[in-house]
Amino acid sequence: MQTLGYYNGKYGPLEEMTVPMNDRACWFGDGVYDAGLSRDYHMVFLEEHIDRFFRSASLLEIEVPVSKAELREILEDLIRKLDSGNLLYYFQVTRGTGLRNHLFPEGKANLWITFKPCEMVDGSVPERLITLEDTRFLHCNIKTLNLIPSVIASQRAKEAGCSEAILYRAGGRVTEGSHCNIHILKNGELWTAPANNLILPGIARAHLLAACRELGIPAHEEPYTLDDLFSADEVLITMSSHPCSHADTVDGRPVGMKDEATFQRLREYLVNEFLAQGK
Amino acid sequence: MQTLGYYNGKYGPLEEMTVPMNDRACWFGDGVYDAGLSRDYHMVFLEEHIDRFFRSASLLEIEVPVSKAELREILEDLIRKLDSGNLLYYFQVTRGTGLRNHLFPEGKANLWITFKPCEMVDGSVPERLITLEDTRFLHCNIKTLNLIPSVIASQRAKEAGCSEAILYRAGGRVTEGSHCNIHILKNGELWTAPANNLILPGIARAHLLAACRELGIPAHEEPYTLDDLFSADEVLITMSSHPCSHADTVDGRPVGMKDEATFQRLREYLVNEFLAQGK
Repeated sequence: MQTLGYYNGKYGPLEEMTVPMNDRACWFGDGVYDAGLSRDYHMVFLEEHIDRFFRSASLLEIEVPVSKAELREILEDLIRKLDSGNLLYYFQVTRGTGLRNHLFPEGKANLWITFKPCEMVDGSVPERLITLEDTRFLHCNIKTLNLIPSVIASQRAKEAGCSEAILYRAGGRVTEGSHCNIHILKNGELWTAPANNLILPGIARAHLLAACRELGIPAHEEPYTLDDLFSADEVLITMSSHPCSHADTVDGRPVGMKDEATFQRLREYLVNEFLAQGK
Repeated sequence: MQTLGYYNGKYGPLEEMTVPMNDRACWFGDGVYDAGLSRDYHMVFLEEHIDRFFRSASLLEIEVPVSKAELREILEDLIRKLDSGNLLYYFQVTRGTGLRNHLFPEGKANLWITFKPCEMVDGSVPERLITLEDTRFLHCNIKTLNLIPSVIASQRAKEAGCSEAILYRAGGRVTEGSHCNIHILKNGELWTAPANNLILPGIARAHLLAACRELGIPAHEEPYTLDDLFSADEVLITMSSHPCSHADTVDGRPVGMKDEATFQRLREYLVNEFLAQGK
């Protein structure tokens, strides 16, 4: 199969799969997900994605209907059914099935899994970004299916000929991208927004912080602003499919590209780590 | 049928209906909806619900795949298939179908419709409420499927033995309930949060304001706080299934119940208007 969709034990080509209309995804977006890349059928950083998935579910009081070990086993069984091994693996859990009612339903949660072809972006090409006000809810630490603001922000970026939108709150405080974390380098040191309810604790972000420790690059998990970003030496982008990229343009203005050496050290470290895991 | 589900032309008992896994409801909650009550197969305030539905869709740049007149025709055809005429009518549109990708997809949006039995609540029994911080996104004027905070708030209310949660932002500013509008009466006048991006412009709320005009009750669409609410003469609740109720308890403290005469004038006006429409 080129793509695969799984729902509570049934699976098939993703495009042919259906789900009950009364799944709470359909009325409330009432669920959480996680996703990462595989390379040659090895799911990179899978344990970290599963751990975060269970934390997201727990924060919304959704009981994942399988254990972490069982989820891994199902994923490892399913991935073998795909024609290619370079994939995006994706799993989500929704808060059960029932006639539309805000209150938590009786019965078990639903497990969804998908695979589709996807290649890692190695960060060798600088990206163009825009900025947008962050109007999302105050639960951005949970990887939920309530993603309309991220959908709109991604579309706005595309319409501006860019790959991503940098979101900011009051005072120009940078939170993250519409589906990535954003960081800056200044004088050889890294700044990234602290992991609170305003950002997703990115797994690529955690690996970037670990790379900084490993490479002796001081890292600050502290708020920074758009002004800081526009005057930074480098603007970095991390997400599970892009271990480390940088930007050369934000809102049509040149940014960063002034500390290629530090950027390349981080990028090479993270891409190599990704490739090593995918073996 | 007791319940009915409709999806892009296909329909059947709601519990048996399925939808494509790749509908964008499933990955992003990427859609909007509207809903109202029918009585004896007459859909009360249907034109207003359809108008608001098209406004919600337009605000998210989703093109409803039928005209307003066609939607009304489909609804009036489907409702006749139900065993009883006292129902919740519900319709939603989602931004098409495709492999998960934040960017707007090619192709048409999907139309969903459901009916299920539901009776009007006449407001004769006072309600018990709780308060919770409003942590939702800043697009609460759009009736979207991104409803996790409302789900959680409703559940918290139920766990406290209450029917609804009153949401408040910084400074104790009351916005609305988790799925209703909240208003107060003080010295014979009504206060309700202004219709901006922090609240849904409720159709029952619009009828309450019209009733105030009709009955000579001054009404203020201005922000008010929890302090104002706790010292109000009456705390009113409106939603499409409850034309006008009031609360006697908030967070376990007695509230309102000090201007029964004004409350009853409004309640009777609104319940009678509802019943007249449902004929």
